[in-house]
Amino acid sequence: MLSVEDNQTLTRVGAGTPMGALLRRFWFPALLASEVAEPDGKPARVRLLGEDLVAFRDTEGRVGLLDEHCPHRRASLALGLNQHSGLRCLYHGWKFGVDGRCQDAPTESAGAKFCARIRTKAYPTREAGGVIWTYMGPPELQPAFPEFQWLSMPGTHAVPFKILEDCNYAQAVEGTIDSAHAGVLHKSVPWDTPGRLTHERDLVPKLEVEYTRYGLRYGAVRKFDDDRAHVRITQVVLPFYTFIPPDGAGPRKDRRLINCFVPRDDISTWHIQWFFDETQPIDVKHRIDEGGHWLDENFRKLRNIDNWYLQDREAMKTQEYAGIRGVVTQDHAVSETQGPILDRTQEHLGTSDVAIVAWRRLLLKAARALAEKGEVPPALDATLPWPTVRADTKIYPRTRTWKEEVPLSEGVTLARAPTS
Amino acid sequence: MLSVEDNQTLTRVGAGTPMGALLRRFWFPALLASEVAEPDGKPARVRLLGEDLVAFRDTEGRVGLLDEHCPHRRASLALGLNQHSGLRCLYHGWKFGVDGRCQDAPTESAGAKFCARIRTKAYPTREAGGVIWTYMGPPELQPAFPEFQWLSMPGTHAVPFKILEDCNYAQAVEGTIDSAHAGVLHKSVPWDTPGRLTHERDLVPKLEVEYTRYGLRYGAVRKFDDDRAHVRITQVVLPFYTFIPPDGAGPRKDRRLINCFVPRDDISTWHIQWFFDETQPIDVKHRIDEGGHWLDENFRKLRNIDNWYLQDREAMKTQEYAGIRGVVTQDHAVSETQGPILDRTQEHLGTSDVAIVAWRRLLLKAARALAEKGEVPPALDATLPWPTVRADTKIYPRTRTWKEEVPLSEGVTLARAPTS
Amino acid sequence: MLSVEDNQTLTRVGAGTPMGALLRRFWFPALLASEVAEPDGKPARVRLLGEDLVAFRDTEGRVGLLDEHCPHRRASLALGLNQHSGLRCLYHGWKFGVDGRCQDAPTESAGAKFCARIRTKAYPTREAGGVIWTYMGPPELQPAFPEFQWLSMPGTHAVPFKILEDCNYAQAVEGTIDSAHAGVLHKSVPWDTPGRLTHERDLVPKLEVEYTRYGLRYGAVRKFDDDRAHVRITQVVLPFYTFIPPDGAGPRKDRRLINCFVPRDDISTWHIQWFFDETQPIDVKHRIDEGGHWLDENFRKLRNIDNWYLQDREAMKTQEYAGIRGVVTQDHAVSETQGPILDRTQEHLGTSDVAIVAWRRLLLKAARALAEKGEVPPALDATLPWPTVRADTKIYPRTRTWKEEVPLSEGVTLARAPTS
Repeated sequence: MLSVEDNQTLTRVGAGTPMGALLRRFWFPALLASEVAEPDGKPARVRLLGEDLVAFRDTEGRVGLLDEHCPHRRASLALGLNQHSGLRCLYHGWKFGVDGRCQDAPTESAGAKFCARIRTKAYPTREAGGVIWTYMGPPELQPAFPEFQWLSMPGTHAVPFKILEDCNYAQAVEGTIDSAHAGVLHKSVPWDTPGRLTHERDLVPKLEVEYTRYGLRYGAVRKFDDDRAHVRITQVVLPFYTFIPPDGAGPRKDRRLINCFVPRDDISTWHIQWFFDETQPIDVKHRIDEGGHWLDENFRKLRNIDNWYLQDREAMKTQEYAGIRGVVTQDHAVSETQGPILDRTQEHLGTSDVAIVAWRRLLLKAARALAEKGEVPPALDATLPWPTVRADTKIYPRTRTWKEEVPLSEGVTLARAPTS
Repeated sequence: MLSVEDNQTLTRVGAGTPMGALLRRFWFPALLASEVAEPDGKPARVRLLGEDLVAFRDTEGRVGLLDEHCPHRRASLALGLNQHSGLRCLYHGWKFGVDGRCQDAPTESAGAKFCARIRTKAYPTREAGGVIWTYMGPPELQPAFPEFQWLSMPGTHAVPFKILEDCNYAQAVEGTIDSAHAGVLHKSVPWDTPGRLTHERDLVPKLEVEYTRYGLRYGAVRKFDDDRAHVRITQVVLPFYTFIPPDGAGPRKDRRLINCFVPRDDISTWHIQWFFDETQPIDVKHRIDEGGHWLDENFRKLRNIDNWYLQDREAMKTQEYAGIRGVVTQDHAVSETQGPILDRTQEHLGTSDVAIVAWRRLLLKAARALAEKGEVPPALDATLPWPTVRADTKIYPRTRTWKEEVPLSEGVTLARAPTS
Repeated sequence: MLSVEDNQTLTRVGAGTPMGALLRRFWFPALLASEVAEPDGKPARVRLLGEDLVAFRDTEGRVGLLDEHCPHRRASLALGLNQHSGLRCLYHGWKFGVDGRCQDAPTESAGAKFCARIRTKAYPTREAGGVIWTYMGPPELQPAFPEFQWLSMPGTHAVPFKILEDCNYAQAVEGTIDSAHAGVLHKSVPWDTPGRLTHERDLVPKLEVEYTRYGLRYGAVRKFDDDRAHVRITQVVLPFYTFIPPDGAGPRKDRRLINCFVPRDDISTWHIQWFFDETQPIDVKHRIDEGGHWLDENFRKLRNIDNWYLQDREAMKTQEYAGIRGVVTQDHAVSETQGPILDRTQEHLGTSDVAIVAWRRLLLKAARALAEKGEVPPALDATLPWPTVRADTKIYPRTRTWKEEVPLSEGVTLARAPTS
């Protein structure tokens, strides 16, 4: 439960807001590289943090991310001609490079001299992990790029996905910092059937949170057998990443999942995912059981709130608990039906929500520290050993603790819990 | 014509408004019983007075009406599993009974002790006349259930219908306290053709209003022949019922109609109707001449404002006045095109509107008396003889008055006219 | 670039706004005559300056333009019966003539005496050039009707069109006071191909503005050859007309185009066009190259912002610059993607925008002069020689000026430039 004020601070991401200012200090995913696959290809409209932008790949393969509207008379550059190392507005032919500089203004007699004065909003981009990343903050404060483990892996072993989620980013994040829901919502058999996986057998894991310089990690500990415990360690990386641990068993025992929730605006979110596996290629078709063609051309789910997720009441009785096809759609169903912006003043939290509470406090504290004292969050520290930060699943003797068994990466120090 | 202020008071029904508070003191229809026909069946989303609720019938056949959102993290309980005497949230499996009590919270280790502290918003329900009724006011002030005549009749002789009306409830009510429009809007022949029914032959009935403890009744008196008069007596029962008199002749001479207009929110209304006949079963197929399949699965008319009611201009010249199929659709057409909330500051009322004016005054007075003095409207009096309150049509000697011919039910006393 | 305040004044057209008051002082097009083609035919709903109206042609062929809502209880008169020289409301049968007078109120016993007191809002109309015109200002201030040249021509030689434009009227107007864009946006070959027409060969015309009593005219002067210059003179007539010059060569060398942008409300516009040719009939089918069936029954483009104008990226490489079929759709695409109301605080204007700047200043000045000093704009002067005001294209010796070659019409005097 949050106050009206805290909920507002947590969820509003516009340019003038404390959280908007915090998020703009990070590099984050802007769109899939495949959306602007071809040099001189079709530009893509992209909405990020409430700003309307256009992405395009120029003749040299560089990706530009500009204000969607031409600085001249504000027509959409997404209609523009992408050619000869720049994007040309359909209206008067003004042309812009990936750096936002005006290269040509054919309707102006002053020519190059005129162009030199014109520059449109352009955010830097970087391509990694099949995704175009951007930084939307003050140019002079651009941080180091986060060299996450999966970003250096071959495209066969680390595959990105993008799904539109019709709600605020914060409740989307929270849905994945929630080990407890996995054994309920994603239960692959009817409710009355005993579960198959460890986390279905024991719905009440013990949650232990450990604050770090980049955010937090928490272990969901369950009894495995009389001698051993089972832990799933989720990494929660500021501002909006969750690193989900692998199953630890079965055919995809080393496959890990990364979730990233980039605010499209206050009421919609780009859910970016990567699956990665160091031991074998990702089976894209198998992927998650979303059932084939499940997204439209705008990345919206075909099973969505308008058709009530095509929930199948018969299946709930005989086949699976939720009656909704696909793990992602299941997650989005509960998040989206919380409303466009979850009213956290009406919640009743339990002990299973301890990690959610921790993440909220961290993020609120970081936004306020920046707004009030200009403090940069430690998650932006260039010395953080990103390649070693990962989620894990482990079975270990009950005489030990999971923190001993899976120590923090070298260079990641503990942080104090934020006070609320 | 009303002032801006009066119009606002009359039409706004949210929890914090004077009219919202008044309406919440009454039992009223929430949904059709057939929407939650089966024990352990699919829950139904229901919006009432601007509140989003979920209805479900539990294993024992009891009907619950809860806050749509789970009190834990606010996912929609309408997605939930209805089983074992409760509705279980898809997200973390918390389960609620029809009384709103938490029966299970499988993700919480404290178990029953934790549940005891959790209770969600639950409104009492009652099933009568094929409809689930509810009371959304303060529990300690719950009034007696109104034992209307048709609610004790067999389902063959009293049949409910439900239609979504795309406008505020008050203009919907007013459309049925308006004997004058019947001979115009519902004229079943072109305008230039002389009418067939009494009320088509004489478009200018004399309207006489009589205020009662439950609201008002009014007689629309027309000359029948040189010796006799014809009266149609409509009962207007607070807060939003109109009892429409029978034809008094023809094959369905004793069939009566009840209209009830429950605000869905400020700009849409659940129009609940019953037809009942003490002398013969209701012919559901014949019903009203809406022409077969006329509603979609959300109770919206297939002929609606978006397709301009499929009005047929040729039919207006050769077959019927309105060119719109179906009496209900005709009524809704005029009410909906008044706008989402009728601007009563722009009206020009005539003598035919006397009953409308009376109803507005009554309702405004009741809302203000409650808000300012805590006065409970007499329509909530438990001693009111509801089974005897009914609409009538009568032919009688012109030497008599209709009030003598059809006296008020025993126990219903007259009330003074509200001063505006 | 405008201030927030100026942009607001320029774009808001509601009844209480300075621009709304100015526009209501002019006669302007309300709808196509063909929308109410038949006496006693179907009425047409018309939204103008944010007001909802209904148009109908009565038995005698007169066209009425009334408040859409019946003054009695506000049902839509667009549902009404059009018969016997008046429009009869479906609800209670009240009937109104084209003058707004109540002719019948069959539900009122006082009859004619009652009717005499009832009058609904009715705007005067006039039919000219295939269009129904109206005046929505104070009756006592009705100006002379503007006798434009093409309004007195036969229907074969002057043909009107109507298209809905999904944005504010001002940016729609500006798109046609913009000679520079023609050679870019409407380029009928790929960008890299040298243009064919004069105005494609030279993208940087010299723009010269001349203020007049009715608005302004400007010449876009280009070099034709060593001895001769080429000028296209556009007339900009207050409040929202642009007279586009003819090609001056080719099969339709004398065909002129008139654009008129009537605000539907603040965020949508009725784009009314006429093509007229004094030398030959207009070839309606050829018209402009919009490619056959291009509007729906509500005058909305089939290629619109929702389907991104069906822009064809392949065509942009091989056939034409914009990849959007049809000149009007091309113009609307750039105007509509500027947003519902163009944010003029974000513009960067160039020398090619001088006529746009001039028009804005003129209109702002006129709106303020009326609001602050009650000054009537000179464009309403009854002595203006409208039949002689027209756009022209001319080739002339470079030793002369276009103003000498094409003098102002007799009776049109110059005006001083507005100071901003």
